[in-house]
Amino acid sequence: MSDISLRERRYRRISQFHDVEEVLSQVVPKIRAKPSLLKVRTRVAVGRILAEDIPAPRNLPPFHMSHVDGFAARSCDTERASEDSPVGLSVAGTVRPGESGGRIEAGQAFRIFTGGYLPEGADTVIPQEDVVAGGEVVYVTRPYATLENVVPSGSDVMRGQVIAKKGEVLAVTKASLLETLGVYEVTVSEAPRVSILSFGDELTDDPAEAERGKILNTHALTVSEMVRALCCDVVRMLIVPDKPEAVSDAISESVEDSHCILTIGGSSVGDIDLVGTELRRRSELFIQGLKLQPGRVGGVAVVDGKPVIMLPGLIHSTVNVFNYLAAPILAHILEMSLNQLVLNVEASMNESVELQRWLNFKRVVWVTLRIRGDGKYEAYPNVADASNISSISKSHGFIEVPPGKSFISLGERVSVRIPLWITRCLAETK
Amino acid sequence: MSDISLRERRYRRISQFHDVEEVLSQVVPKIRAKPSLLKVRTRVAVGRILAEDIPAPRNLPPFHMSHVDGFAARSCDTERASEDSPVGLSVAGTVRPGESGGRIEAGQAFRIFTGGYLPEGADTVIPQEDVVAGGEVVYVTRPYATLENVVPSGSDVMRGQVIAKKGEVLAVTKASLLETLGVYEVTVSEAPRVSILSFGDELTDDPAEAERGKILNTHALTVSEMVRALCCDVVRMLIVPDKPEAVSDAISESVEDSHCILTIGGSSVGDIDLVGTELRRRSELFIQGLKLQPGRVGGVAVVDGKPVIMLPGLIHSTVNVFNYLAAPILAHILEMSLNQLVLNVEASMNESVELQRWLNFKRVVWVTLRIRGDGKYEAYPNVADASNISSISKSHGFIEVPPGKSFISLGERVSVRIPLWITRCLAETK
Repeated sequence: MSDISLRERRYRRISQFHDVEEVLSQVVPKIRAKPSLLKVRTRVAVGRILAEDIPAPRNLPPFHMSHVDGFAARSCDTERASEDSPVGLSVAGTVRPGESGGRIEAGQAFRIFTGGYLPEGADTVIPQEDVVAGGEVVYVTRPYATLENVVPSGSDVMRGQVIAKKGEVLAVTKASLLETLGVYEVTVSEAPRVSILSFGDELTDDPAEAERGKILNTHALTVSEMVRALCCDVVRMLIVPDKPEAVSDAISESVEDSHCILTIGGSSVGDIDLVGTELRRRSELFIQGLKLQPGRVGGVAVVDGKPVIMLPGLIHSTVNVFNYLAAPILAHILEMSLNQLVLNVEASMNESVELQRWLNFKRVVWVTLRIRGDGKYEAYPNVADASNISSISKSHGFIEVPPGKSFISLGERVSVRIPLWITRCLAETK
Repeated sequence: MSDISLRERRYRRISQFHDVEEVLSQVVPKIRAKPSLLKVRTRVAVGRILAEDIPAPRNLPPFHMSHVDGFAARSCDTERASEDSPVGLSVAGTVRPGESGGRIEAGQAFRIFTGGYLPEGADTVIPQEDVVAGGEVVYVTRPYATLENVVPSGSDVMRGQVIAKKGEVLAVTKASLLETLGVYEVTVSEAPRVSILSFGDELTDDPAEAERGKILNTHALTVSEMVRALCCDVVRMLIVPDKPEAVSDAISESVEDSHCILTIGGSSVGDIDLVGTELRRRSELFIQGLKLQPGRVGGVAVVDGKPVIMLPGLIHSTVNVFNYLAAPILAHILEMSLNQLVLNVEASMNESVELQRWLNFKRVVWVTLRIRGDGKYEAYPNVADASNISSISKSHGFIEVPPGKSFISLGERVSVRIPLWITRCLAETK
């Protein structure tokens, strides 16, 4: 019974399980895949990763700006004004929105509206309701301080201040700020190219074949969305048959044109062996076996400086190994800061969970969030077999259970991690 | 000084401020804009709003599935097995992954691998490590219970169970589940068409003109991203000059071909009057003035059954009125459930905030989130003038301060609301 022994070899091979952090620290220095840089119009760079720190080229507001409708003046001219002896200022002009320029002389005032830039020399604004307006002179009945009713130049952004950082996903509000400051072009990383290879003769993308008994390659679909949420391009989605040459060819062409390769193991006998054998043969580094459950049969290889991440075939394992290995590796390639990958939401457990197996591993429990009346979240654990698709599809995030912990109590406060690919498309939390 | 009185009229007009909830309850019943429905391949519907509840057409797994590598058998055949008197089962075949069919007879066993479907009549699986394998008979040394080592049919999804709901944003994991269940097409809402009209002679989209003193129309850019995050299409982005005919024409053509119109008021004198005058003239409902700060000059009109939401021109007000009025109205048009619009994150305040003005309004304080060493969030308030762009651009979310509350203490636990358009593109939270 050769297939039993083949199967046994597959499991026997993983004799050692590694901390995910340790794996990352070994893999990252070996990665030589680096996307090139692009200069693009700032507004079309929204959602891309900035490749440079950007200092503000000017102040915002560029000049002192009026906070009210009224009259721009020199504070020193109002110093002696009082109810008993008002000071008259001659109205020398009107400032139109967006205009700058003009110079105020001693004893003058300029009509100005909210948002208007003060003329050179002016440092205060007298609100229109404070003066008896009319004609060409306005009378001031108290002193106005320097910068009273003024939004000072540089109070929003100071020239030279770093307003956007290398590694940051460019948000639209930041792009707007940059363009307002005259930064019309930014340097961003080209989207890294990612190949997704699904292994297994039993897989298909064709509904008709699925109806005849083949297995629909939906894991690749899920993985492709996760990849895109990380600002990467999927350049290849292939189903690779269980033949050594096919496996070798698919890996060769992917390594050639991609920055990162994700393999998804099928469930048929021998497929992981084929991939593992091929990768072990050609890689600079090969690690399989993670202290992560579900996900322990996941691994990573580096071939020609390109990371090849082995995602196991059961959906919980596929997704967990993506989150713990592929996402940080892609973030490294993008030089994207890691804390942009997940959002942490606090919730209280609605059910207790007992975790008896793989006690010295990190365990991952997927949960559905529901909003209580008081606006706080409750977490409903979706404990299921690693092959269970519905439990992942109704989850909003996951809890990381640290090694050694075997029980999560009812009512316990937990931190639910919501990966970027879920926050982009929040499922119902009612 | 006619422009002063014009300006005064603009503010004087808002004599009454309305609760946002009250405004929504008046507007929503008057909306007759309804996007049509589309049938699309499930996998391309990711990110769209489902227009129907979807019950599972079959069980998942469709048949009993093996949880281990071993031998499928009938539990009744193993009832009398013991170490002293093992029971021999004849190996009648092998189940290949994805295959179904075959029937087990009394005294038989089928070779099976993890994920394989049990043949008809089999209800248990004997793990390969339990038997002395070899040849055509396997010996069983204890009884195996019904469903032992079996993932029962329907344990992932039960036929008839509603697995996706009307109003839900289709996540990729849900799309994968649906396709796995044979649901290859779903009915979704067509993306609602939204027009964005920016009013003001001082606005431009041209960097060269901006350098000569005009104001770059970046608010429309921000609003367009917010609109797209809500599964809507931006079909028009126009800068409309401060002329009554131009205003009237822009509104007419937008009402004709859009499901919703968003106007952005400029900062120049009279622009809100032009828009307000035109809208008041032709609308079934016109409300301006919100108990929301920044944002109190925002409003909404309904013209020919289409909502026209008036976003004020200062960026904090623009964004707040979008979140409080436009987002729920777009969600209503999409029949999307409201709790998909924001994610709530708990944080502790890193600074106290005093709010002296507009005490009986809802006030909005934007904050930057930073992760502490213990993995919890701290909220850094970005208190600034409503025109301040950098404060919004570095914020991750906002705190809603209820009417009457005037102080947020240092260390206070607050709920930070992260709108969908930010979660899609998380800025740095380091």
